[in-house]
Amino acid sequence: MTLSCQHQKKQSKWSGLFNEISHKPLPPPAVSCVLNPFPSPCLPPCACFQLLKALTPEENSLCQHGLYFQDGQRRVDYVLTYPVKKPSAGRSSRQSTHLLTENAVARSLRHSSSLLSSPAADVELGCPGETFGGQEDHKAFRREEFEGKLRDMGLELEKDEDTKVTGVGFVKIHAPWNVLCREAELMKLKMPTKKVRLQSSGVVEKISSLVSKVLEPLRPHVEEHHTKNIKHLSHTFSREKQHLLLGSGVYTAAYPLHDLLYEEWANYSVFYKYQPIGLVRKYFGEKIGLYFAWLGLYTQMLIPASLVGVIVFLYGCATVDDNIPSMEICHPKNNITMCPLCDRVCSYWKLSTACGTARASHLFDNPATVFFSIFMALWAAMFMEHWKRRQMRLNYEWDLTGFEDEEVSSDHPRAEYEFRVMQKSLSKDQKSKMEKLTCRDRLPAYMTNIVMMLLMIGVTFAIVFGVILYRISTKAALHMSSNPITRNHVQLTVKTTAAIINLVVILILDEVYGAVARWLTVLEVPKTDKSFEERLIFKTFILKFVNAFSPIIYIAFFRGRLVGRPGSYLYVFESYRMEECAHGGCLMELCIQLSITMLGKQLIQNNLFEIGIPKLKKLIRYIRSKQGAFQEEERQKKLQRYETDHFLEPFAGLTPEYMEMIIQFGFVTLFVASFPLAPLFALLNNIIEIRLDAKKFVTELRRPVAARAKDIGIWYNLLRGVAKVAVIINAFVISFTSDFIPRMVYQYMYSPDGSMHGFVNHTLSYFNVSHFQDGKEPMDPLHLGYHVEICRYKDYREPPWSSTPYEISKEFWAVLAVRLAFVIVFQNVVMLMSDIVDWLIPDIPKDISLQIHKEKILLVDLFMKEEQGKIHILESSYRLSTGCKENCSRSDNNNSTAAHPRSGLHTNSPVDSCKCH
Amino acid sequence: MTLSCQHQKKQSKWSGLFNEISHKPLPPPAVSCVLNPFPSPCLPPCACFQLLKALTPEENSLCQHGLYFQDGQRRVDYVLTYPVKKPSAGRSSRQSTHLLTENAVARSLRHSSSLLSSPAADVELGCPGETFGGQEDHKAFRREEFEGKLRDMGLELEKDEDTKVTGVGFVKIHAPWNVLCREAELMKLKMPTKKVRLQSSGVVEKISSLVSKVLEPLRPHVEEHHTKNIKHLSHTFSREKQHLLLGSGVYTAAYPLHDLLYEEWANYSVFYKYQPIGLVRKYFGEKIGLYFAWLGLYTQMLIPASLVGVIVFLYGCATVDDNIPSMEICHPKNNITMCPLCDRVCSYWKLSTACGTARASHLFDNPATVFFSIFMALWAAMFMEHWKRRQMRLNYEWDLTGFEDEEVSSDHPRAEYEFRVMQKSLSKDQKSKMEKLTCRDRLPAYMTNIVMMLLMIGVTFAIVFGVILYRISTKAALHMSSNPITRNHVQLTVKTTAAIINLVVILILDEVYGAVARWLTVLEVPKTDKSFEERLIFKTFILKFVNAFSPIIYIAFFRGRLVGRPGSYLYVFESYRMEECAHGGCLMELCIQLSITMLGKQLIQNNLFEIGIPKLKKLIRYIRSKQGAFQEEERQKKLQRYETDHFLEPFAGLTPEYMEMIIQFGFVTLFVASFPLAPLFALLNNIIEIRLDAKKFVTELRRPVAARAKDIGIWYNLLRGVAKVAVIINAFVISFTSDFIPRMVYQYMYSPDGSMHGFVNHTLSYFNVSHFQDGKEPMDPLHLGYHVEICRYKDYREPPWSSTPYEISKEFWAVLAVRLAFVIVFQNVVMLMSDIVDWLIPDIPKDISLQIHKEKILLVDLFMKEEQGKIHILESSYRLSTGCKENCSRSDNNNSTAAHPRSGLHTNSPVDSCKCH
Repeated sequence: MTLSCQHQKKQSKWSGLFNEISHKPLPPPAVSCVLNPFPSPCLPPCACFQLLKALTPEENSLCQHGLYFQDGQRRVDYVLTYPVKKPSAGRSSRQSTHLLTENAVARSLRHSSSLLSSPAADVELGCPGETFGGQEDHKAFRREEFEGKLRDMGLELEKDEDTKVTGVGFVKIHAPWNVLCREAELMKLKMPTKKVRLQSSGVVEKISSLVSKVLEPLRPHVEEHHTKNIKHLSHTFSREKQHLLLGSGVYTAAYPLHDLLYEEWANYSVFYKYQPIGLVRKYFGEKIGLYFAWLGLYTQMLIPASLVGVIVFLYGCATVDDNIPSMEICHPKNNITMCPLCDRVCSYWKLSTACGTARASHLFDNPATVFFSIFMALWAAMFMEHWKRRQMRLNYEWDLTGFEDEEVSSDHPRAEYEFRVMQKSLSKDQKSKMEKLTCRDRLPAYMTNIVMMLLMIGVTFAIVFGVILYRISTKAALHMSSNPITRNHVQLTVKTTAAIINLVVILILDEVYGAVARWLTVLEVPKTDKSFEERLIFKTFILKFVNAFSPIIYIAFFRGRLVGRPGSYLYVFESYRMEECAHGGCLMELCIQLSITMLGKQLIQNNLFEIGIPKLKKLIRYIRSKQGAFQEEERQKKLQRYETDHFLEPFAGLTPEYMEMIIQFGFVTLFVASFPLAPLFALLNNIIEIRLDAKKFVTELRRPVAARAKDIGIWYNLLRGVAKVAVIINAFVISFTSDFIPRMVYQYMYSPDGSMHGFVNHTLSYFNVSHFQDGKEPMDPLHLGYHVEICRYKDYREPPWSSTPYEISKEFWAVLAVRLAFVIVFQNVVMLMSDIVDWLIPDIPKDISLQIHKEKILLVDLFMKEEQGKIHILESSYRLSTGCKENCSRSDNNNSTAAHPRSGLHTNSPVDSCKCH
Repeated sequence: MTLSCQHQKKQSKWSGLFNEISHKPLPPPAVSCVLNPFPSPCLPPCACFQLLKALTPEENSLCQHGLYFQDGQRRVDYVLTYPVKKPSAGRSSRQSTHLLTENAVARSLRHSSSLLSSPAADVELGCPGETFGGQEDHKAFRREEFEGKLRDMGLELEKDEDTKVTGVGFVKIHAPWNVLCREAELMKLKMPTKKVRLQSSGVVEKISSLVSKVLEPLRPHVEEHHTKNIKHLSHTFSREKQHLLLGSGVYTAAYPLHDLLYEEWANYSVFYKYQPIGLVRKYFGEKIGLYFAWLGLYTQMLIPASLVGVIVFLYGCATVDDNIPSMEICHPKNNITMCPLCDRVCSYWKLSTACGTARASHLFDNPATVFFSIFMALWAAMFMEHWKRRQMRLNYEWDLTGFEDEEVSSDHPRAEYEFRVMQKSLSKDQKSKMEKLTCRDRLPAYMTNIVMMLLMIGVTFAIVFGVILYRISTKAALHMSSNPITRNHVQLTVKTTAAIINLVVILILDEVYGAVARWLTVLEVPKTDKSFEERLIFKTFILKFVNAFSPIIYIAFFRGRLVGRPGSYLYVFESYRMEECAHGGCLMELCIQLSITMLGKQLIQNNLFEIGIPKLKKLIRYIRSKQGAFQEEERQKKLQRYETDHFLEPFAGLTPEYMEMIIQFGFVTLFVASFPLAPLFALLNNIIEIRLDAKKFVTELRRPVAARAKDIGIWYNLLRGVAKVAVIINAFVISFTSDFIPRMVYQYMYSPDGSMHGFVNHTLSYFNVSHFQDGKEPMDPLHLGYHVEICRYKDYREPPWSSTPYEISKEFWAVLAVRLAFVIVFQNVVMLMSDIVDWLIPDIPKDISLQIHKEKILLVDLFMKEEQGKIHILESSYRLSTGCKENCSRSDNNNSTAAHPRSGLHTNSPVDSCKCH
């Protein structure tokens, strides 16, 4: 029974309220539930009756009670809750309440007061270090003070302590029209003024109508698309212009939002349709609208990427039989004896046994892969550009073009920050008021941050290393097993268990890292909410990214490279030889690891966790409260809307949703050279993900406070960062992990006939078995049935008969140089192409910029007409009334006016000023 | 005697006018010349009397005539000129007038009309394809029509055809206060409202006051810095708020601008001082203000760069005696015989003769250079970031924060474009009005563009190749000369003449390319002025950049690399061997070429051309008009201001200035690894350049029309591009041009004792002189006094006694791999560091964002107070007057209001509305 202040971010509340302005003038009964700005999902309307199932729309009308004040006139716009003392519970039981809740109240107070009064008020209210004797009374006093402030702002309040939810008092708040107007003007909200038809030329019109006809079944069945060509001319909200601009009939298009949103959006059966983003934004605010728009665009962009990916994969399948290297490996005539893969227990083996792996490798390691990774790098650049354009379009459609980010709210110091500042100034006994935390104050926190981040990354690396050790040691152990079945399935057993261990570790660490990042950010005491969020996101991203990708990076770039050579292998802990890759290169293993991690993460973490846990929490909350106070079914039915919403999970922000998607974006772009099917998997996941998230927002969470946002903020930068890293990682995967470069080098530098024949032989070095270290030679040298003198291993080294046996050969350096040159060329070409894409695609869609231009002209036109009308009236009134010559002459625009700026043209009421003498 | 329409960009004119708003209320006599918005520099005031010399300020008061209309009251805000028919000249002589001048008028017409009326007016006016019979009359008619439009807009006009400048008629335009107000509101200009003191905390205050005391002598002596802590609270211009906001006493600080600008800015003696950017902006508008601010910041940033550059150079000087490779070369004991540098005429030579070059190379090729190029890459990133911040600060100080780019003006189609559209629709006889040029219409122009651009770049390359041929052939010819003095000075003669040829070619081609780029852009018929300018700049930049840097790139990356080897040299035209570099690598030659090009360009092109040519033109124009009509000294004295300005060079835009600087920026960043003194040279040039440009703007050009701008536009992108290219070029210079990597490789891979001893020997391959091709061996094999069997040459090749003689050796591949790896590491590390710099430095300076935040709160506060006052009045009036209950009750904010949005609160005149029944 803590003080649950739903009022987490006061400024957002205003945003929320003003989203609703446009709905105010509607006759309340028709759209009551739809436009209810009360912070709970009206969907599922059924929340009133059955908490865990969705209601049918007919029952909706029943849940209107609780939406209005007692007078049935004024709408409840926002609700605050606070704990009400039970008569039984003594004052002492409340003493342990944490200081932070105190701060939360203080913050709320400050947030609202700073909005309306001068900053001086901050200091007076923001001092939580006082005597905490009568904590209850103190709190009640604060509440009263806060409510007084709210009333001063012009808000209307109604208290309700006598609810059916015991121990919780509700303060219902109503924001009257004039308060909304004032705030809208201050926030430079735009208001609709006049309908404009978006023009397009003849041919384009025809094509677009054709396209829209084709796409018709993909559109959600909302009225939106009927009106999509009509746009209201909007102007920064100004009460002066209100009489001029607020035309009648602007609000005719009221959608029955509730069932539409549920049926046409939060529903798996409409997975193939576009999202009704406009409705989502109207209901949830711009911030959440932007998330779903982004997710939609990302999913849409994944369609071509997965198509091309599948084609590349199919190309691999089709050409696998023409691939000379794998043919050479598989051909039984090429009787190449390979050196043993482990000490003592393994023996020599025939290269032709690696035939299957070699053929499978070709699926992912063929020239089309190079093309595909270039394609995906450009795809990422295109995606970024398209998102910029889509964002711009949404900004225009949602009238956010003039809106600057909520600097006022986000620049405001957090309560924790101010508390620290106060603590500091108290402890130092300085007379001058400390105004901020210096770097020195923060040094310990920064140091902790750096150390902890490094430690966490170290832990990730240690775990990767642990899994390697597990693989090496288990393999060695199983090889020594006497059971032949065990020995035959060594590879399978080890790989499967290791991959599962990896996945489980990633899932567990993900949760741990989320908590650690939050803890570290709290420790840092960032000044503003915005900076808190950004720091948190950044830290979480770094940790989760490292967590998800370090095993993959190990396989791609390190595995099989640090093995040494026959006769002088590299040993871990002096007894375990480092892992080698199968003959086809490590690309195959990289591919397996990638698919397991990606699919596992998506299936378990995203879907299972995301649906399961909120459902579970809601159930627990519901059961607990049921046990607590009231069980009667009939009373429950009469629960007010604000009481039922009390049981839903509060909205925790979009961070987890974005984070999930950005990690997925990493899977799609970073190693796409080795796994062309990644976009397809991502696409399949996202089609479900959109509807899943929609369902969650609509049915499982309290309705989030609508927040305005122009862009997706730090996430865009992270996406850019991932796309940049992807270019270099793909360059390295192609040139180092795949055999692309060695093949090229062989073909153009060493091949006698310019074909790939002889490539396999060229990549294998010679080893004289008499050079094995003592005790490392195979126990069963005659395993293959003949005596082996020379075995082969995959490396570019001098043969035993050269003057410098087993030294790195010239071929190695040549191949390395070409590999590195390829990296440079690939990276710079792709970066250049991305820049060109970036430069060619304008950030603002042409039709939008044209439209903005036209709107400006129309607005100018409107004002000019108005002004000329006024001047006419003025002139005529001037001629008529000779008495007000003195007053009106100043309006008679001339040089004489220029000298009196104070008495300049009052064009808004020239007639009044003349009449009122 | 063409129609000189000064009125090049109509929209800018408005910007210019509204810059002047703030000066309007001043009593005219005190600041007349200072605030004269007439498009001519009031500086030098002396222009009235002596055209080529600057006046003393005392004489200034004399040149006030011409600043006002005949009534002496209304100020001349803008001037249009047109040709007046001489009685002697017949109508027929005017027939050849080019169509474009027609268009220029049409465009002006449209520009102004589109600003004020609906787009429909465009079509009506923009049709130049009519009968051109009575061209003079037609023009006169158009002028009248245009002037009528101007009058409709509320402007006041005065014609003056009877001036002393024969054949030119003047239309003087005055913009009255109310027109200015209307336009200001439409442009969302901000207006000053209330003074705010920028706050800073105790310690910071002390430090900053100390700093400002230290920097005091660097500040220009203008009053600006006394008031720098005071900022006017500004609000988007709104006539409604005018009565509230325009306080008295705002305009007390009127600076005597004219002599100050001249004395404290356009003067070489103040080169060490900051520029009075505020004054520059007030006088020339934001666009030019931004250029000078940018130039100032760039110059300032060059100071640390040149300091570090000088230190790096001094480090090279200091360590030249400790450099083992050059010691080994110079030591006479190391008796290495080198292979001849040319066929037949050259003979073997001793390595120790290259001692001087080797020592000099060390000055530019030492480990400090690597550090310096990393430093310069970060410096470039820092510069970009600092500029963003400075721009933001200027935007704030100049109240541009809300100003969106002049979309209206820049989106307007150019006359040439509309003419083409009309031509097309006429020729095709289509009924539907063509609205735009399609890609197909533009294809020929685009193809011409691409072909011409490639051709021009080809010409540049051909010239570079020509200079190479010149060098090779001259060298060969001089070597064969019988004169021993000539032979001794071969190197010097060839290098000097080639460098001079290069420089001359660059200078000539620069002019040619400027013209070609303009021609190509005209051919392209871009739609808007903005796009015209951007395309032009882009093309000019590409051509000039290639022109300036291709000889340097050849020397850095190709010279000495394509020479073949002794016994199989590479020949051009089958007779000339390709050039080799001197022993110390090509870095030394690169350095020489860089310094010659850079200094030559700066001295000749920038300074000589920039000062000389405008002076010359002015003189010619003056002399010609003198010869033409009036020579009398006394009449000249009475010339009106707008007549004298007729003789000044018109302002041609900032493109040449920016272009010059960006090419210089290229010299400073691109090859800085080979020439650490470049920043110093640039700094010295720029210190002069600032004052030179200032002088030119103040005395040599007609006063440019003040244009608003928020940023430096495309130049910023070009700068970013250069900075990006610089990273990769420096990586290649360090790893391929300098000997840094071979030294490292030798030290860590081949050196027997880990020192550099033996490096020179390691880099030299062996050649058996018996393997020379027939006819290529030296004519004088005993030149050194002994018989040579094996000579050495600089390359990594197998010795003659290996199994594969003269093939590329393993060392070559190893060094190449390390070189390429270095490029990858360097590029990515530097890019990452630049990104971190970009990320760490916030784009908006903290104090500015704080101040913006505070201003917002103060404005909100102000409005709240105003509103509360109104509500009080409203309430009291409500209580008093019972009669207007019906009318006023709607203002009584309640739910009932919400239902009547049309009649919402008219808070601005509630009292009036109650009284007026």
